[in-house]
Amino acid sequence: MADSRPIGIFDSGLGGLTVMKEIAKKLPNENIIYFGDTGRVPYGTRSRETIKKYAVQDEKFLLLNDVKIIIAACGTVSAVAADTGDSLPVPFFEVISYAAKSAVEATKNGKIGVLGTPATISSEAHKKRILSVMPNAEITAVSCPLFVPLVEEGWINADNMAVYDTARRYLEPLKAANVDTLILGCTHYPLLSDVIQKIMGANVTLINMGTATADAVKNYLTENNMLSGANNNGTNKFFVSDMTNSFEKTAEMLLGKKIDSNNTEQVDIDKI
Amino acid sequence: MADSRPIGIFDSGLGGLTVMKEIAKKLPNENIIYFGDTGRVPYGTRSRETIKKYAVQDEKFLLLNDVKIIIAACGTVSAVAADTGDSLPVPFFEVISYAAKSAVEATKNGKIGVLGTPATISSEAHKKRILSVMPNAEITAVSCPLFVPLVEEGWINADNMAVYDTARRYLEPLKAANVDTLILGCTHYPLLSDVIQKIMGANVTLINMGTATADAVKNYLTENNMLSGANNNGTNKFFVSDMTNSFEKTAEMLLGKKIDSNNTEQVDIDKI
Repeated sequence: MADSRPIGIFDSGLGGLTVMKEIAKKLPNENIIYFGDTGRVPYGTRSRETIKKYAVQDEKFLLLNDVKIIIAACGTVSAVAADTGDSLPVPFFEVISYAAKSAVEATKNGKIGVLGTPATISSEAHKKRILSVMPNAEITAVSCPLFVPLVEEGWINADNMAVYDTARRYLEPLKAANVDTLILGCTHYPLLSDVIQKIMGANVTLINMGTATADAVKNYLTENNMLSGANNNGTNKFFVSDMTNSFEKTAEMLLGKKIDSNNTEQVDIDKI
Repeated sequence: MADSRPIGIFDSGLGGLTVMKEIAKKLPNENIIYFGDTGRVPYGTRSRETIKKYAVQDEKFLLLNDVKIIIAACGTVSAVAADTGDSLPVPFFEVISYAAKSAVEATKNGKIGVLGTPATISSEAHKKRILSVMPNAEITAVSCPLFVPLVEEGWINADNMAVYDTARRYLEPLKAANVDTLILGCTHYPLLSDVIQKIMGANVTLINMGTATADAVKNYLTENNMLSGANNNGTNKFFVSDMTNSFEKTAEMLLGKKIDSNNTEQVDIDKI
C-alpha cells in the first residue's frame, strides 16, 4: 500500500518553510506542495474572522492540488483557525498541538515559556493545549512582533546588537519566570534559536514546532500506510500569492537550501 | 465661495495618520476622512501590480464618501502607484513630490538621503523627482524594513538599544555619504525623528513628508477657493479594513491625539 499524492503545507508567508524543512528531513521520499500566502502576509496582526477566511481559501487551494494531508505550518492559523481543518476530506495537522506535547514531555520543573505573534499569544492556544494535559503547568507567554521582521531582514546573529537587545527585552519575563522549556511558537523563530539559547542559557530546552509536527506526520503516514513508497527523493513545488523581489533569498534562508525557480508559481488566492 | 466636502486621506495602514496630523494642524477647520487599509497592510513588500490594485480601491472608497481632494498618505503608493491618481474626478496629492521639493530647497551641499520601505526605495521615486529639478544632486537611498515594526511596537526612543542599533545600521551609509538633508520617506518614520536626528547630527535637516504635503494642500485649497469656510474645528472620521486590538493605541500614537471610537468604522475594501 502506498499513496503517491503530495503532502500539502501552507502558511501565511514563508515561515512555514522551516516546517517543510523538518518534514523533508524526516520524510525525504515524499512529494511536497507548499503554499505561502505572501500577498496577504502577515496573518498575526489580523482579526480572527479574517484569519479563518484566509485559512479556508489556503486549504481549498491545496485540495485542488490533490494532496493527501494538509499541514497548517502557521502559528497564527493553528492558534485561531484550527477548526477550519475539521471538515476537510483529508487529515489535517496544525503545529501547535505537537509543540505543546513536546514541551510537556521536555519540562522538568513544569515551567514552560511560549513566544509567538500577537494573535497567537492572545489566543492562548499553546497555554490551553499544555494545560489540558498538564493542568499544573506554569505558562509564561510573550508576544514578539519584531522577531519576524528581524528574520526577514536576515538579522539573526547574536552579535547583531539590534537582534540581541530585541531578544533580551522579549525574553526578560521568561528568565524571571525560570522556565526550563521554551516553545518557539512562530515558524520564523527557529532562525533565532542561537540568540534565544544564548540569552536563556544552555539548560533551557527550545521546542521547534516543525520538528515536533514532522515526527507526528511521519508516525501518522506510517501507521496508515500512506507513505509514498518511493525510493527516490520527493519533488518540491512552491506556490505564492505574490512574488516579491526578496522571495528567493528569504525562502532559501528559511528552507535552508536552494530553490529552483522553475518550481515556483504565483496564484490568485482571492479567486480560490 | 467655500467647499464643505471633506478632505480624503488614505494609507496602507495607520502611518498616514502622521500626514493627517500635519494637515489638521495647518487646516484645522477642514473635515477629514481617513481610510487605513489595515486588512492588507503592509503594501511596501508587495508587487507593483498588487499595490496599484489596492490604491484604486482605496481611492474609489474615498470618492464614494464625496471627498473634495484625495491624498495618498502612503510612501509606497506615492512611489509606485501615483498614476492611479491621474484619472480621478478630484485633485490628487501624493506625499513624495512635495518631500522631494522640500529637500531640494533645504540642501546646501546637494547631498540628499532617503529612507523608505523596500518597495519605495527600489522604485527610486524620490531620486527621480529630486533629479528632475536638481540634476546634479547626489542621492543616497536606504531601505529600512524594520522601522515600521519598531514604531508599531512603540519602540521609538533613542535609549532603547534595539531601536538605536537598528537606526545606526541603516544610517551608516548616509553618514558616510555626508548628506545634509534626509527625507523620512515613509509615514511611520517621523516617530523616529529623535533617534535619527541624534545619529545623523543636529546639522542634518530631516524632511517630514506630511509637513511638506500639508503646505502644498493648504496652498492649493486656498488658491482654488476650496477651503471649508467654517470657523469651528473640522470633524475627523476614520475607516479601516480590519479592526485589530492594537488599533486605538497605535493610531493615537501616530496621530498624536485621542481618537473617539464612535468615529471609527470597519469597511470591506475587497468589495469596493
